[in-house]
Amino acid sequence: MRRLSRPRVPTDLRRSLLSSPARMFVTLFVVVDLAGAAVLMLPVAHAEGDGLTFVEALFTSTTSLAVCGLSVIGIGSELTVFGAIVVAVLIQLGGIGIMTAASVLGVVVIHRFGLRMQLGVQAETRALRVGDVRGIVGRVVRTSLVCEAVLALILVPRMWLGYGIPPRDAVYSGLFHAVSAFNNAGLSLYDQSMTRFSGDPFLLFPVAIATILGGLGFPVLLEVSRHLPRPHAWTLHTKLTVTTTLLLFLAGIAAITALEWTNPATLGPMTSSDKLVNGAFHGIMPRSGGFNTLDVGAMDQSTLLVTVMLMFVGNGSAGTAGGIKVATLAVIFLVVWAEIRGHPSVHVFGRRLSRGVIRQSLSLLFLSMTVVVASTVALLVATEFRLDRVLFEVVSASGVVGLSTGITADLPSAAQLLLVVLMLAGRIGPITFASALALREHTRRYDLPESRPIIG
Amino acid sequence: MRRLSRPRVPTDLRRSLLSSPARMFVTLFVVVDLAGAAVLMLPVAHAEGDGLTFVEALFTSTTSLAVCGLSVIGIGSELTVFGAIVVAVLIQLGGIGIMTAASVLGVVVIHRFGLRMQLGVQAETRALRVGDVRGIVGRVVRTSLVCEAVLALILVPRMWLGYGIPPRDAVYSGLFHAVSAFNNAGLSLYDQSMTRFSGDPFLLFPVAIATILGGLGFPVLLEVSRHLPRPHAWTLHTKLTVTTTLLLFLAGIAAITALEWTNPATLGPMTSSDKLVNGAFHGIMPRSGGFNTLDVGAMDQSTLLVTVMLMFVGNGSAGTAGGIKVATLAVIFLVVWAEIRGHPSVHVFGRRLSRGVIRQSLSLLFLSMTVVVASTVALLVATEFRLDRVLFEVVSASGVVGLSTGITADLPSAAQLLLVVLMLAGRIGPITFASALALREHTRRYDLPESRPIIG
Ligand SMILES: [K+]
Ligand SMILES: [K+]
Repeated sequence: MRRLSRPRVPTDLRRSLLSSPARMFVTLFVVVDLAGAAVLMLPVAHAEGDGLTFVEALFTSTTSLAVCGLSVIGIGSELTVFGAIVVAVLIQLGGIGIMTAASVLGVVVIHRFGLRMQLGVQAETRALRVGDVRGIVGRVVRTSLVCEAVLALILVPRMWLGYGIPPRDAVYSGLFHAVSAFNNAGLSLYDQSMTRFSGDPFLLFPVAIATILGGLGFPVLLEVSRHLPRPHAWTLHTKLTVTTTLLLFLAGIAAITALEWTNPATLGPMTSSDKLVNGAFHGIMPRSGGFNTLDVGAMDQSTLLVTVMLMFVGNGSAGTAGGIKVATLAVIFLVVWAEIRGHPSVHVFGRRLSRGVIRQSLSLLFLSMTVVVASTVALLVATEFRLDRVLFEVVSASGVVGLSTGITADLPSAAQLLLVVLMLAGRIGPITFASALALREHTRRYDLPESRPIIG
Repeated sequence: MRRLSRPRVPTDLRRSLLSSPARMFVTLFVVVDLAGAAVLMLPVAHAEGDGLTFVEALFTSTTSLAVCGLSVIGIGSELTVFGAIVVAVLIQLGGIGIMTAASVLGVVVIHRFGLRMQLGVQAETRALRVGDVRGIVGRVVRTSLVCEAVLALILVPRMWLGYGIPPRDAVYSGLFHAVSAFNNAGLSLYDQSMTRFSGDPFLLFPVAIATILGGLGFPVLLEVSRHLPRPHAWTLHTKLTVTTTLLLFLAGIAAITALEWTNPATLGPMTSSDKLVNGAFHGIMPRSGGFNTLDVGAMDQSTLLVTVMLMFVGNGSAGTAGGIKVATLAVIFLVVWAEIRGHPSVHVFGRRLSRGVIRQSLSLLFLSMTVVVASTVALLVATEFRLDRVLFEVVSASGVVGLSTGITADLPSAAQLLLVVLMLAGRIGPITFASALALREHTRRYDLPESRPIIG
């Protein structure tokens, strides 16, 4: 009786949050997405005052909240300042939400396995406490705001003094792009994205560094900022993420700069310095940043395929980047490498990878590929575009990258709605899937006789 | 002293064959490939009498021996009957060689793991005996010749009575295509492959069934022929292979027939009956048969992507098909399915999959994808063709399928040589790789502390 007399909603909410944080997160995400779409349909958000169509508003709300960056409208040209602020708020909510949710789910997984803490949360109990979640949210918000403020403090004077943008516009643009960059949203107020800043290292490199920091993921960011000079003290997750992401950045920058070097429609006509700056920028941006200074649709077919691969992988777990994440790729690579060397277990940095995490990585890879291939076939049937364009757009949506060969705005509504589903699934799918799998891991008491089919 | 006086070569050969059958097999394969190229360069093999160029001859020898089917020349139009017979002999050697080698390696693996025999070889000893190899070769040759003879007995009268091909030509063509079909070579005497028999179920279905039988693999063929009415007595490998291959055939036939149904350049103008027959044929042929009755280059982009996926998988292990093999795909799918259901070990047909075979399947998948992507990037750089064409040709070569959008003959020599390497690697790579990994499997006594990065 006493229980019934107490206020029920907060208890239920609290219980729901703690018992099934994944379900809570997915529900919240979809509710905020639809609310954002409703607000963006208001005439006050539309430059022409007619209001966006439902599909335009839903697409814009989703690309903002899922920090993707594909767009069917010009954010700066077709939205009012109010509309652009709604977009920035959705980006900020999406970025903070995803980092918090992924970190909380990470803590739950860590509690479940009784492993040592990576997020500054006490590990004495095996139940997640409200204080833990509050602490994580606080740290995520502080980290995000500090990084965004620093980037804005670099962008605003550069835009004002270097490009003659009036101070008030420079503040507006600097803040918007700082939020968009750290959260890996890739949405720009300019219809040609960062093309107007082509070749400018003082503006592009800070933007790129912010996308990298946001993309590394909150656990890595926290740990590196605490133990920067002592990499040997980092957890395995941080070591793996930092090493893999660095190698992928170097490979991406080298490949894309080399492949586009003589392309008359992209790097070809530029000075060597501009080639290097823009090549580096385009080697970094597919890892979910999503800004561009070159015409992606004019790139060589080889560059598009390399970009697709980089977009598919993304960057760090529990960050603002998408994709299957570098840790997943690293686990798969390490399994293959151990297998080639004939090692029965997978070792890295003095640790052995658990069998559960190996199977989960394989599952995430396989399901992500299945989603990409099935969606690509569907879009190829629904449109007249060719494989290179459609595959690029599908991976950009499901990897929440936002780079585009230019076809998204021209797609039929049904195809745009498929991209909406892909952005949502790409943003919340891997996190909830991986944590759900990890939490269901358990050991079987009895087992069947072993057998092996012939493979290869 | 006594040992030294005995003849050394056969002993060495025998020791080498038994101690490292994989190395022996690879060496023999390359030697026969080069010998075939040398013979095909003779003017007597060339219809115009000039002799093929080195690249043409090497390509033709490789596509025959690796039972691929891509071609830079017209087999029937540019080679003499002598040249075509050389091609047929290379196909036969390649088919028998691959089945024998894969079966022998399979026996070695089975010996190593002390599992129950699948190939009619005694399992009392853990060493491979010469008698075992001889027995396998005998069974492989008998099986091949019987299947080819039956198919030729169907094809010859049909070509003679149904198409008015003179009896002698019908015998020549029937025998050539029987050899080409059972061995999944996909090489035809006709420049348009099977297009002249478009819609003819009495000719196309026997050809398709022969490619399926050859593609299922020798161990499955042997076991099914012995225990046809008792599928519960089949080994896990046979159950997995038959189930998966059947599902993939149904999916491939349904998808390709539906996607091409209204294409004016392929099925569109045909009668419903012709659509169904040709659609079924093109749903089966990507699984390494490689013949075609439709213009592959005119197919829809969605069909090309579906075909690429089917070509990548191929058919059964230790058969004449290529690809990563259906058992590999089945293992990966079962791992993912078990993971989604939260099962700690992977069960199928009352057995548990060994951890070794899971890691080996993942390795084969990952390396195959890496080879495909890297080769596609290289060919995109080297040519002006677009992603859909280049990816198709690369997967067709590495999966030794032989279907073509028509670009192979137009590629520069360097690109054709890359395809030669891909055909060789695709034919002998998976078998030797998988068996090498299986043979190096062992258990580690001590181990490092376990750790798990965050994935997804
Ligand atoms: K993005
Ligand atoms: K073939």
